[in-house]
Amino acid sequence: MTSYYNGFPQSDRDEAINMINLDELEERAKEVMPEGAYYYIASGSENEWTWRNNTAAFNHFQIVPRALTNMDSPQLDTEFMGMKLKTPVMISPIACHGIAHKDAEVATQKGAAAAGALFTSSTYANKSVEDIAAAAPNAPRFFQLYLSKDWDFNKMVFDAVKKAGYSGILLTVDALVSGFREANLRTKFAYPVPLDFFTRYQGAKGEGQTVAQMYASSAQKIGPEDIKRIKEMSGLPVFVKGVVCAEDAFLAMGAGADGIYVTNHGGREIDCGPATIDMLPEIAKAVDHRVPIIFDSGVRRGSHVFKALALGADLVGIGRPYLYGLALGGAKGVQSVIEQLNQELLIDMQLTGCKTIADIKHARLTHFNYTADN
Amino acid sequence: MTSYYNGFPQSDRDEAINMINLDELEERAKEVMPEGAYYYIASGSENEWTWRNNTAAFNHFQIVPRALTNMDSPQLDTEFMGMKLKTPVMISPIACHGIAHKDAEVATQKGAAAAGALFTSSTYANKSVEDIAAAAPNAPRFFQLYLSKDWDFNKMVFDAVKKAGYSGILLTVDALVSGFREANLRTKFAYPVPLDFFTRYQGAKGEGQTVAQMYASSAQKIGPEDIKRIKEMSGLPVFVKGVVCAEDAFLAMGAGADGIYVTNHGGREIDCGPATIDMLPEIAKAVDHRVPIIFDSGVRRGSHVFKALALGADLVGIGRPYLYGLALGGAKGVQSVIEQLNQELLIDMQLTGCKTIADIKHARLTHFNYTADN
Amino acid sequence: MTSYYNGFPQSDRDEAINMINLDELEERAKEVMPEGAYYYIASGSENEWTWRNNTAAFNHFQIVPRALTNMDSPQLDTEFMGMKLKTPVMISPIACHGIAHKDAEVATQKGAAAAGALFTSSTYANKSVEDIAAAAPNAPRFFQLYLSKDWDFNKMVFDAVKKAGYSGILLTVDALVSGFREANLRTKFAYPVPLDFFTRYQGAKGEGQTVAQMYASSAQKIGPEDIKRIKEMSGLPVFVKGVVCAEDAFLAMGAGADGIYVTNHGGREIDCGPATIDMLPEIAKAVDHRVPIIFDSGVRRGSHVFKALALGADLVGIGRPYLYGLALGGAKGVQSVIEQLNQELLIDMQLTGCKTIADIKHARLTHFNYTADN
Amino acid sequence: MTSYYNGFPQSDRDEAINMINLDELEERAKEVMPEGAYYYIASGSENEWTWRNNTAAFNHFQIVPRALTNMDSPQLDTEFMGMKLKTPVMISPIACHGIAHKDAEVATQKGAAAAGALFTSSTYANKSVEDIAAAAPNAPRFFQLYLSKDWDFNKMVFDAVKKAGYSGILLTVDALVSGFREANLRTKFAYPVPLDFFTRYQGAKGEGQTVAQMYASSAQKIGPEDIKRIKEMSGLPVFVKGVVCAEDAFLAMGAGADGIYVTNHGGREIDCGPATIDMLPEIAKAVDHRVPIIFDSGVRRGSHVFKALALGADLVGIGRPYLYGLALGGAKGVQSVIEQLNQELLIDMQLTGCKTIADIKHARLTHFNYTADN
Repeated sequence: MTSYYNGFPQSDRDEAINMINLDELEERAKEVMPEGAYYYIASGSENEWTWRNNTAAFNHFQIVPRALTNMDSPQLDTEFMGMKLKTPVMISPIACHGIAHKDAEVATQKGAAAAGALFTSSTYANKSVEDIAAAAPNAPRFFQLYLSKDWDFNKMVFDAVKKAGYSGILLTVDALVSGFREANLRTKFAYPVPLDFFTRYQGAKGEGQTVAQMYASSAQKIGPEDIKRIKEMSGLPVFVKGVVCAEDAFLAMGAGADGIYVTNHGGREIDCGPATIDMLPEIAKAVDHRVPIIFDSGVRRGSHVFKALALGADLVGIGRPYLYGLALGGAKGVQSVIEQLNQELLIDMQLTGCKTIADIKHARLTHFNYTADN
Repeated sequence: MTSYYNGFPQSDRDEAINMINLDELEERAKEVMPEGAYYYIASGSENEWTWRNNTAAFNHFQIVPRALTNMDSPQLDTEFMGMKLKTPVMISPIACHGIAHKDAEVATQKGAAAAGALFTSSTYANKSVEDIAAAAPNAPRFFQLYLSKDWDFNKMVFDAVKKAGYSGILLTVDALVSGFREANLRTKFAYPVPLDFFTRYQGAKGEGQTVAQMYASSAQKIGPEDIKRIKEMSGLPVFVKGVVCAEDAFLAMGAGADGIYVTNHGGREIDCGPATIDMLPEIAKAVDHRVPIIFDSGVRRGSHVFKALALGADLVGIGRPYLYGLALGGAKGVQSVIEQLNQELLIDMQLTGCKTIADIKHARLTHFNYTADN
Repeated sequence: MTSYYNGFPQSDRDEAINMINLDELEERAKEVMPEGAYYYIASGSENEWTWRNNTAAFNHFQIVPRALTNMDSPQLDTEFMGMKLKTPVMISPIACHGIAHKDAEVATQKGAAAAGALFTSSTYANKSVEDIAAAAPNAPRFFQLYLSKDWDFNKMVFDAVKKAGYSGILLTVDALVSGFREANLRTKFAYPVPLDFFTRYQGAKGEGQTVAQMYASSAQKIGPEDIKRIKEMSGLPVFVKGVVCAEDAFLAMGAGADGIYVTNHGGREIDCGPATIDMLPEIAKAVDHRVPIIFDSGVRRGSHVFKALALGADLVGIGRPYLYGLALGGAKGVQSVIEQLNQELLIDMQLTGCKTIADIKHARLTHFNYTADN
Repeated sequence: MTSYYNGFPQSDRDEAINMINLDELEERAKEVMPEGAYYYIASGSENEWTWRNNTAAFNHFQIVPRALTNMDSPQLDTEFMGMKLKTPVMISPIACHGIAHKDAEVATQKGAAAAGALFTSSTYANKSVEDIAAAAPNAPRFFQLYLSKDWDFNKMVFDAVKKAGYSGILLTVDALVSGFREANLRTKFAYPVPLDFFTRYQGAKGEGQTVAQMYASSAQKIGPEDIKRIKEMSGLPVFVKGVVCAEDAFLAMGAGADGIYVTNHGGREIDCGPATIDMLPEIAKAVDHRVPIIFDSGVRRGSHVFKALALGADLVGIGRPYLYGLALGGAKGVQSVIEQLNQELLIDMQLTGCKTIADIKHARLTHFNYTADN
């Protein structure tokens, strides 16, 4: 911690993290981050029931090991929307990486690129889409969109994003208002570092904003017709981010969405909704391979990635863990986080006879009713 | 704590409560209330299994978030029995508000009226129905009836209630004898403040009574024919309060009841009965929209209100939390409690695409078998 | 504690117990009893899984309260095998009451008689069947039989029991060998007080025996034909004690058993078998009202008695709690324990509209899947 | 602890263990073993979910006691693949017994032989197959095979094993790569004592190897055709070890396997796979008595042995507990562990009317949904 933005301490590390598992990063990050920033990440809404169950519910499904499969050397490579990726692990969009590291999204993009993972950048990034793109010019990246009530703002965003070489848009539709996040109220959290798109459009409004204020400027009223408009205006493929039931998957596909992003915002919005892994089967059945599916919320182990792929996902995003990695090791820390998951996933693949990511989609899970949560 | 009734300390506050959630009020109330009074509120019967599960069982149902709903600005207004209410949250009847505040039910009624919520007053109120009505002349209110064995007493009550402008009667039928409330035995609790209707009928008998003594004066033998008699004698609509199965709902409707009140008395009567939220679906199916349904027991969050509405309730009552609010902030404290729930409920409405309270009745809940209780 | 048998301290109290519930007696008994004696009572076999679940599994069933039932003044009286009883609560047989009180079974019988409950005396009682009978000459009582390998011993027992006026025999068939009771091994428990039937037949062999030694003298090989032989030899009705599945109920009835006693010996035999309350429905269905059913194992509350009756039992036994009562209050302590259950049961009856014990058999239970054990 | 190998302390005890149950051995072993060695045994992979649930899931099934069975003196003798065994409890293969005792597998074999149990020796044993055989010349034994990538190594192993009089081969197919064992990473565990087959083939490579290095030399790519080749090359019957689903059971039988070994490697490989006891029913159905079934993973009590037999197993292996026994008592300690299970199993047999091990296969289990884990 040697760097400061306006008095807010930021990590300036760039080193690989020696870790046993991703869970331990939470505790280590807590030691090096300011309290408000730490709890902004490490919390969910209301009673945090959905947040906890996002991870715990993976135990509702069990991976059936396979033995006589005559294979070795499993491979993590996968193709997604024409992009060659080295892993099905994706960097999910999170606002304001500057709370974790002075290089913010630029460092995250570097780490993701080094691991060959898809990076997705938030509308509420501190760094500009141009700077992020410049950090890893040939790396794959998507852009997450908080649609603004102000379509001039949206237009500015689309133009910048397209010009910077982003390959697609993830339209967030599950956070039309902020969930009731008690931790933020307790710490009186406000974004300590300005958010680039706000700055360039309106001056330095991103800094010092509370989460609630920020959400207020984004559109609450979003319907299928917006998907079409965004596709036309941006000329980019659009995934609908925040689908947790078949009904919305049908609406999204009906409106021309290029993909479905299954997430409950990491348990930060409705508290008391189902874990995403429990809803993935119904959504995968509804989508029926017509468009790709991205999945996130609660992923902490290679086995979680495996289970999500086996239940219908094409890419599996992580959120909080890579922000901890960013705080603890910068770009290389982000890379370490992805590689830890890769390492665990490769073991699961060998032990289930899955040579490729595509094979995982045919792996068998059981659904026994265990009560000992992890 | 500057006011005393016969040596019993009563709050005289009148201030809004700054809170994160309703749960924290329990702990804060414990610090300011006498032990016996606190545990009279904060306890259930026997092992408190039903009390705990009333709240925990809400997790048996999960709210399915919706995304592409093209709506914003959800509204809490609702109409109930011809009354215009600003929220579906109702103040459930509780005896002896004087254990929490010197102004007792008068303060509670003021707070409810300020929030636009339906207030319901107990037969065992400290304040007179006239004084309560005078506190908010135009506010909506119902009267909860413990039927007495003495019909002269009942007649006196009906006349006073009707004259004071109450719009309906909630006939309690689930507390024909007191549940075995261990906490009251431990603290040797007796009502520290006289109960108005006892005083006016029999002298100052309400003060110093134990709960068991008080119940002894009320009728244990209540059948469908009593509903008819009360309706005729009072000229008011009658809800049957304490229905937790289809059979009683059918009996009540068959006897001309104007509404069904689903409650297990907050887990204070039978301990080991089902949580009310688990029984609501069967009752709603039996009622089939023929009469309105009030629901309570265990409600602590906006999501609980949402789930009860989605499963068939028209109004959703709260009990213990508003008494904590009364102790901690008087009328304004009661208002704060209701507004906290409103705030949470509005978020759930936006995130499920429910523009109105009526829309919530069509919202989808899942029923996954989670084991991590909240 | 002023009485000693051979250095072993025994209670000589005779006083009513002021209690909140039966559970608290365990802790209070622990304070006044020698460690080995206490853990002989307060333990199960192996991991004590079945012991714990005997009680916890009552929560698998929930009592549905009823409201509009037009009844009051429920009554506990019941008739069983021609005996008039004042309560469906029964004193289950336990060996060696002398570990709890100097008057042993004589005091227990007095307490049971005062409460109008059926007393059942163990083959391994300290006191003689004659002394027990003399303690309450007109009280109803049954005799529990550990069949000996030595039929001369059995004959001596039958003759004494019949002459002493016992009304029936409970033939224990579920304890053909002692369960693996770790607590007894830890405390090196041996019976500190001689067992009358052993003394009169073989000299003072009951004292200083370990549980395993005692079981060694009883028959391990028991089949349907033994039921017939015991009936003929004793001239008394015979209940088969230790039935936990339909198959044994059919075998017992086929061999002429006069009743079925559903018990798993309070979780002291097989550890990892089902709770008796979970098996009662299948047994009640098999029996189909052809003979009466006694039930025990895990009963600690009036609601447990209620649930067992509602699922098919005619009498409901308690074990450990009355021994705690015996240690803490002698005969009057035993009476207090029964009356505590009566008090709780009466509340449940009023709140479910059950005027009589027979009505409880038609009460409705739900079977929701709660996870919060009590 | 008076013996040292290269500075690594090894037990040299040879004494029976006085124990209450197997669980307590874990704690006692912890006190006498070096940390790395202890945690190498007492841990599973990743979150140890499967490890914990291997044992906890036995509670998914409950043993139904039987009463009127007219039997006594149950017998543990069983025949398996032509071998006369005194117990269905088997010593499962574990690498490097030298971490627990200076006499390593030689002591374990002696203890197993004294108890009449089948001993199985690991490819990664410290002691030579010849020395192990010499320790108990007439005792039954099987050999566990980690197939090497180097078939010359395999040939050398087969020849030695056959010459030393082993009766069969257990081909491990569930550990083609090491599970992610966090405990080993934390303690930086490496094998402290050389592994005989490595030494004789390649020099002293077994000592100082990490688990990951060791696995690297074994074959990852194993298919049905390897079963046939091993059978031909070795001239011995081959069991496939690591089957946890019907599909692999069918493949193994189709390739000529002589038996199925149901195990998930004690929760040391995939973490998040089902407990083996939950998969046993589907495998037993697939096998349908065509070949014998060995079962292990999580066994700690006689009741676990009983349940596995009742669900289709012919032999039931134990792992970690006998290594604790080896550390605490050498050969006699291993014998004590087996005899503790025998003692518990005999009680369960008497109380369920099972005269023989074959009878257990017809015993009834229930499948109630209990939530109180043991």
